Amino acid sequence: MMDIKTEKSFKEPRITLVGAGPGDADLITLKGIKVLKTADVVLYDALVNEELLEYAPEKATKVYVGKRSGDHSYSQDAVNKLMIDYAINYGHVVRLKGGDPFVFGRGFEELDYAAAHGIPAQVIPGISSSIGVPGLQHIPVTHRGLSESFWVVTGTTANGKVSSDVYEAARTKATVVILMGIHKLVEIAEIFKNEGKNKLPVAVIQNGSTNNEKVAIGIVDTIVEIVEEKKITSPALIIFGEVVSLHPDFQPIKEFYVNVAEG
Amino acid sequence: MMDIKTEKSFKEPRITLVGAGPGDADLITLKGIKVLKTADVVLYDALVNEELLEYAPEKATKVYVGKRSGDHSYSQDAVNKLMIDYAINYGHVVRLKGGDPFVFGRGFEELDYAAAHGIPAQVIPGISSSIGVPGLQHIPVTHRGLSESFWVVTGTTANGKVSSDVYEAARTKATVVILMGIHKLVEIAEIFKNEGKNKLPVAVIQNGSTNNEKVAIGIVDTIVEIVEEKKITSPALIIFGEVVSLHPDFQPIKEFYVNVAEG
Repeated sequence: MMDIKTEKSFKEPRITLVGAGPGDADLITLKGIKVLKTADVVLYDALVNEELLEYAPEKATKVYVGKRSGDHSYSQDAVNKLMIDYAINYGHVVRLKGGDPFVFGRGFEELDYAAAHGIPAQVIPGISSSIGVPGLQHIPVTHRGLSESFWVVTGTTANGKVSSDVYEAARTKATVVILMGIHKLVEIAEIFKNEGKNKLPVAVIQNGSTNNEKVAIGIVDTIVEIVEEKKITSPALIIFGEVVSLHPDFQPIKEFYVNVAEG
Repeated sequence: MMDIKTEKSFKEPRITLVGAGPGDADLITLKGIKVLKTADVVLYDALVNEELLEYAPEKATKVYVGKRSGDHSYSQDAVNKLMIDYAINYGHVVRLKGGDPFVFGRGFEELDYAAAHGIPAQVIPGISSSIGVPGLQHIPVTHRGLSESFWVVTGTTANGKVSSDVYEAARTKATVVILMGIHKLVEIAEIFKNEGKNKLPVAVIQNGSTNNEKVAIGIVDTIVEIVEEKKITSPALIIFGEVVSLHPDFQPIKEFYVNVAEG
């Protein structure tokens, strides 16, 4: 008769943080897929495409640990503890996270927690929606003559306020990409207006890279209204910058303002 | 006897820009691999891992169009023209680019050129080294309490000068990631010193994600010397920010300064 403890000891506890990308299941990396195939447990977030779970072995335990808006059933602390418990009891835990683990993903807190418990941990980067989602819409975060940099900021900080970095970013020439900021769009648009950037092109993209993708293209002065009309809501990102003018939907806006100016 | 023109007409010209990721061949997306498998022609850059060419059909034409430092044999204009010629004559051209096509990759210029010639073009994002390379070193570009944003800037602008955005970025609390800036490290470090950021943690990573990876960890005051000692050169990226203090190699630096302060 096999001793349960001995059986467990065959599996060294280890953790791999894997970036699942922005939503389209095919936007995970090959490295991420290879790692999923060796998972004993997969802990996955709300924004992860569940099709990706099919890469994990059938017998692997799959646990949803997403924190949906307003639902605090899994705090970061609870996720950390689950991750350790599963690693000790089952072996290889794949922590599957939306986008990239380190772009507002609290990935380092999980690494840190693993290290504090002596469990080796690795990281596989993912396509961050901050770059990939505008890119799929043919909006380049950088473009010669329009932008020599891009600045990615969270719209929702730990204290619930708009990050002070948004105020600073609004003053610069950088392309500004704001994640998790759609619920504060009115406030964020005001910040750009206060810098005199009323005519700066803006895009808002919900569910980027998926079949449910919605896109709003406008300028700082009009974006709130367009987003309301199109009923765009979370999860969505906001892109401020001249690069947004390269999107085909911006062409009629440009023509309108040229006509107004000439009119 | 088959008419050559007719034979050609079986293949509709089209172009797909694919991000190959930072270097490790397994850091391409599954979507990128699927697209490569349908390539008639692959045009690939200097920083692309050549192992990826094996995903393309054996009969596909593979053309290196890299612009190595100082070698101007393929201008952007020449690449654009090649891309169109191959698409018209062979069908599906995969334009395989290092990192992500839109992070200083001049991807939009290629899209624009394709559009001007009436050739449909698509984009598959890639893992940008700006996020993925620090991440693989367990340096998170964002981390609660340390950084609410990250700002990615090119060290080498079209006119050969350090981007004015670097001067602005040095004044902020953002994690600052500078690509293609290693040859200007002395000048860039001075910019941060002028902002009084002499003790700000800095990492320089060459050949990130590959077997030839080299890492230098220091502070603004010491990074130039450490990079020289370690003979780190292009291609490399530079990360300025408190998040670099989370790297294990920063621990002895922190202890040194604590001792100096107490001594």
